[in-house]
Order: sequence, then C-alpha cells, then structure tokens
Amino acid sequence: MSKDASLTVPGFRAAGIASGIKEDGRKDLALIVSDEPAAAAGLFTTNAFKAAPVIVDMERIRSGRAQAILTNSGNANAAMGPDGIADARASSRAVSEVLGIPEDLILVASTGVIGRRLPVEKILSGVRPLVGALRTDGMEEAQEAMLTTDRFPKTAVRVEDIDGRPVTVLGMAKGAGMIQPNMATMLSYVLTDAAVEPRLLDTLLREGVARSFNAISVDGCMSTNDTVLILANGRAGNRPFRKGGRDGRMFRSMLSAVLEEMALAMVRDGEGATKIVTLEVSGGRTKAEARRVAYAVGNSNLFKTACFGGDPNWGRVIGAVGAAGVPVNPDAVEVSFGGEVVFSGGRGIPAATAELARVMASDRIHVRIDLAAGRGAFVLHTSDLTFDYVKINAHYTT
Amino acid sequence: MSKDASLTVPGFRAAGIASGIKEDGRKDLALIVSDEPAAAAGLFTTNAFKAAPVIVDMERIRSGRAQAILTNSGNANAAMGPDGIADARASSRAVSEVLGIPEDLILVASTGVIGRRLPVEKILSGVRPLVGALRTDGMEEAQEAMLTTDRFPKTAVRVEDIDGRPVTVLGMAKGAGMIQPNMATMLSYVLTDAAVEPRLLDTLLREGVARSFNAISVDGCMSTNDTVLILANGRAGNRPFRKGGRDGRMFRSMLSAVLEEMALAMVRDGEGATKIVTLEVSGGRTKAEARRVAYAVGNSNLFKTACFGGDPNWGRVIGAVGAAGVPVNPDAVEVSFGGEVVFSGGRGIPAATAELARVMASDRIHVRIDLAAGRGAFVLHTSDLTFDYVKINAHYTT
Repeated sequence: MSKDASLTVPGFRAAGIASGIKEDGRKDLALIVSDEPAAAAGLFTTNAFKAAPVIVDMERIRSGRAQAILTNSGNANAAMGPDGIADARASSRAVSEVLGIPEDLILVASTGVIGRRLPVEKILSGVRPLVGALRTDGMEEAQEAMLTTDRFPKTAVRVEDIDGRPVTVLGMAKGAGMIQPNMATMLSYVLTDAAVEPRLLDTLLREGVARSFNAISVDGCMSTNDTVLILANGRAGNRPFRKGGRDGRMFRSMLSAVLEEMALAMVRDGEGATKIVTLEVSGGRTKAEARRVAYAVGNSNLFKTACFGGDPNWGRVIGAVGAAGVPVNPDAVEVSFGGEVVFSGGRGIPAATAELARVMASDRIHVRIDLAAGRGAFVLHTSDLTFDYVKINAHYTT
Repeated sequence: MSKDASLTVPGFRAAGIASGIKEDGRKDLALIVSDEPAAAAGLFTTNAFKAAPVIVDMERIRSGRAQAILTNSGNANAAMGPDGIADARASSRAVSEVLGIPEDLILVASTGVIGRRLPVEKILSGVRPLVGALRTDGMEEAQEAMLTTDRFPKTAVRVEDIDGRPVTVLGMAKGAGMIQPNMATMLSYVLTDAAVEPRLLDTLLREGVARSFNAISVDGCMSTNDTVLILANGRAGNRPFRKGGRDGRMFRSMLSAVLEEMALAMVRDGEGATKIVTLEVSGGRTKAEARRVAYAVGNSNLFKTACFGGDPNWGRVIGAVGAAGVPVNPDAVEVSFGGEVVFSGGRGIPAATAELARVMASDRIHVRIDLAAGRGAFVLHTSDLTFDYVKINAHYTT
C-alpha cells in the first residue's frame, strides 16, 4: 500500500481562515467542499450531552449524502440549548447560500470551550472569504483551522488502484485530550474519490472506527462533540464494489490504515503525553472482557504515571486487572513489558533489570496481559500521564 | 457526641518500631493487642489479586474473634504466590509464640511495594522488641509504623456512655493513593471496649464503610491490600445491645462518625491533593445510578485538574455525566458549584463570576448534580489532580 504525501483528493476543495473566534488570531474556521454531492456516513459521540452540531449532523447524515463540512474551533457550541441549534443552522445556511447547495447537504462541527454562545456573526461574516479561499490544495489550511490544544496536525493518505483507477483516501483529524472509547473531543474527516454505496460506506466506517478511534484512550474522558465523517464523491469513476470483493477489501484496507494512523497520531499528541503505551490483552473469555481489562489498565492513573516515570511497576497493572470487574484467575494471568515476563503463576518474576529499564525508557511501551481464560482479545493504545497533562488542563476556560 | 484527643482504648495496647523493612530507618512494624480475645469483623479489597495477608485474614476473621493485629509497611506482601502466604503465617506465628495467644486470633496486614518478597527475617527479629514496647498509650507509634506516602496520620475518637458506662471507639487509618470504592491501599482499624456481638459488629461495620470508605475516591485505583478491621473487647462491661435499640443507635453513630472522619482525612491526604471535592448527586432513578454518575465525575481527570486550577469548568462535569452510561435527560439536569447554579435547562447559566471564583479557590469544593429523574442519591468525596500526584507516582518502586 503506497503512502502519498499530497493532501489532495480529486473533486474536493478546502480552506481555513481566522474569523476571530479564537482571540489570538489563529485560524478557526474551515470548509471542505465536494464538487458534487457525495455518499456520506458519520459516527458521533454517545455522550448524553451532545453538542448542537452533533445533533444537526445526526439528523442530516441519515440521507447518506453530503457535500460540505463547516468546522469551527475555539467554541464547542455545546450546552447552549435551542440557541446552539439555531446557531449551528444559521452557520450552515450561510454556507448553503454562498455555495448554492442545499443546506441539508452541509455538515457542521465545532470544537473548543463548552457552554459559551457561538459567536455566530463572526462565522457569518467569515463564510464569504472562506468560500473565496477554497482550493484543491487547501487541506492543510482547513486542518490548521480545526486545531485546539493539538501540538501537530494528524493526516493520513493512501492511494491505490481500484477497478483500474487510482483512488485516494485522505484522513484529517484533530484531538489531543478527552480521548476515550467512542471517540473524544475529536473531529476526524475522511475524504475519498471512490464511488461507494452509502450503506456500505457506513458499515466500513463503523468497522474501521472500532479498531482505531474506539481502541485508544488518553484520559478516559468522552466529549460532547466527537465526530467522524466520511465523504465519498465517486470522482474516481470506479464501479461500485461489494464489501467482500477484491475492490471492497482494498478500499476497506485503505480506510482502516488511514483511520488507524490518525488514531495513533492522536495518542502521540495526547495532552502532555511523552509515550504511546500499547496494551495487548488476550485470553479473555470474551472480547468485551478483554476490552474492559484493557481500559481498566489504560485508564489507571497509577499505571500511566509509572509509564511517564519509566517505572516497570507491574503491580499497578495487576492491581488494575484485578479491579476491572472481570473474573480472573490470579495464578493464570501473565504480564509482560516489552518481551520481558514480569508476572506469572501468581507472582512477580525477577526480570532482566537492564532490559526492563530499556523497555520503559522507550517512547513506545508495549504491555501484554494474558488472562488465560479464553480467546477474547483487545488492543488499546493509550498515553502516559504527565506534569504537562495537569498543566494543560488545570486552566482551560479561565 | 464528644471528641476526645486521647488515643487510648481500655484493654488495648500498641507499639510501633523500625525493623529495617523501610530502608530509611522509619518505623515499619506495628502491633495492636487486646488484653483478651475480642469480637472482630473485617472488610477486604474485592480486587482479584488479593495480597497474602488479606487471604490469611479473610480466613481467620470468620470465627468472629481476634486478639491482635500485626502490620508492616514498606512491603505489601502481594503477588508473591504461596511464599507470600507462608511469610504472612510465619509473621503471625512469631507474634503468637511471644504473646502466648493462639495464632488464629492474630490478624496481619501489609502495605507498600507489590511484588517483592517480604523480608520476613526482619519481622521475626522485630517481634520481641515490638511486644516489649507495647503500651496503652502506644497507638501513635503503631500508626506511625503503618504509614507509606501519607502526609499525616488519620485518627478519630469518640467516647459516649452506653448502658451507663463510658465506651470508646478509636479509629486509626493509613492511605493516600489508590483510594476508590471498596477501599484502597488503605488500612483502617477500629478499636473499641464496647461489648458487641460479632454478627452485629459485622453488620454495623459494613453499613459504616458503605457511607465512608466506599464513598471516597482519590484516583479510581483499588489496591490488593485494602483492609478494614474492627475489634471490640467488651472491657466497658455494657450489656450486649441490639441494633435498633438506644444503645445500638448510639454505638452505630459513634462508629459511623469515626469511619467518616478517617475517610475524609484520607481524601484530604490524597496523593498530591490540595482540595477536597464533594460531589452530591441527587435525582437518580436509583442510588446505583447516582453513584455511577458521582464516580464518573469524581474520577474524571479533566474535572479533577480543573478543580486544582480553580477553573469552574462545568462543561467537564456534564461531559462526564453524559458519558457515565446512565440514561439522563440533558434538559432536566442541574449542576451547581457552591450554591451557584451553572447549568440548567440544557444550557450554561451565566453565574456570578466573583462568587464562582471564590468557590473554586476554596480547599473544599462542593458540586451538586441533580439528575431530576428520581430519588436515588449518592455523596462522593474526592480530591483534585495535581502536579504532585504525578510526581509522587511517577517513581515509586524504582
């Protein structure tokens, strides 16, 4: 599978500008437009407090079609009641009028502070210059306008032949904190020129997200705004494919690769993170049990601070495993750090100290937990808990 | 109800010495002895990985009788397999021989690093000087020998007349991290000269713990060693009482007060904590749902860092409420900080900024969450998440 550095997808244009929502003058308004209506699918936060743009998009995505995505950063448009919905609709209406496309083909997304009224007048006056700035190579600028506490943009591209035609899958994402199952203050868009039936697009997106964004955690917190969108405009001209066929498998593989690359970049950019910690849980009686154990360990502050300190404290791993609420046989569980077995047969194993120190000093820590009770497995990527996490999050609104 | 500063209970003696388990020469071995066999009850960690002393005590406490508690700090005697059990038994056997009381009346507890062999020879040579140091006013020294990362000892005393006789209830506890439901790296002992039937003692302890140690959280982590023990030696000479009678209610109230005072002290001493945050959740359809919401908020790192920073970020409260996995009606939920309503009717309420700043700057933050769906309620005490939490926990074994 080839990687391509070019952030363009045939038939898509994008732009990002500073509209004044962010007070420091950074870019805060992004627009992505397909030349023609595209097949579309989306996944959204399961948080009971859904932000206004999430509520609007969940309604609009049902048609399986969309043509544009308007994103603002600096304000989440969350917890604003009916005003929030009205503001989200006013924003998409402005885009609809300037672009001349139906409003219900326009998706909206917001990220930033919760509970402040969206400065909708800034968005309304920004839409015209934003549309004027649309370019096929405008993806970087659009992405820049989506970022909040991110230290770097997250993009991934794959280009492969499908049905004899080159097909591009481009992913762009923002997100650094509040990363947890079912996504997070996380906006992630996938754009492709493949022709894909909306229903198949939806299925493939769900499968891909389960193995990517729903397999990472930074701080165990789930936001009100999490959104993953995919638009497939068919410009490549391939014949629609089935899921199981050769072309379907190729597209699925490209989509998975793009989603997983973005998810891992999000963990790497986890607020204050210095390390990616991969937890590979096997031997669960079910996948759900393996997943529950993985999150219990991955969200343990004691374990996460130990990873930051480079401390091979497997006691905190078994402490979290034992408290996960899953029946485990303490004598059967095996834990290893890197390749080093540190716990087996109900007790600690004297491990090669130098090798363990090397494993823990790395910026990629791999922990394997075998529950030895079945075939359920789950892999979770998380980050360490650091001084900078506290620093970043102690003062955010004030 | 009177508070008494004297840390003595008729018929109990105690001592604490440095046996060399802690390498820095601090006290690390404690013994508490009743002059005669006492009624006894205990509650222990529900972690699947139970430390050896927990396994031993769970077996011994079934008799409803005990006479002594041997505690070491500096080593948890956890995750050591059959060796750990043998070491725990060897320790209690030494106490049994020197004191001349049956081994099965001796309870043991350990706290400290997991996964290192208990230096049992240090304990064996420490037992004789430890017994020689037993004094009626030795409780402070015993407690000092129980501490690990604690910044201060946690004690509570109540003295009241029961059946015309003065009865003392003394509590002493250690614990600062890993504080979560079902207790934590937390050892807590209650000593009383009341005469209480073992079965009633067990019932009253369970009720009291549900409202104290099982209603606090520092970091959402549950340890392998959590232990709460109560010994009632009957020295006060009161006639045994029933739960519902006047004397039973008095004793229950004294026990609750002692347990709650210790639990709150543990939160105040939470690793790195600068604030106690009390979450009062009401309006749940059930108590279990209210409890689940309370823990979702109380264990949210984003909320806890905001409390540290004095940031009235109620967005993180509703974010955690909405992700708790409990059905909630976003438009009905009301959140207040101090007395200030900050979220109601599905949206943020412009609150008095100066008043909110005062509330958040306090070292006691009170957050009320009304789910408006029923009568289930739960009160949780937690702490803020600070730089010092990370510092304390980044390097613990190494």
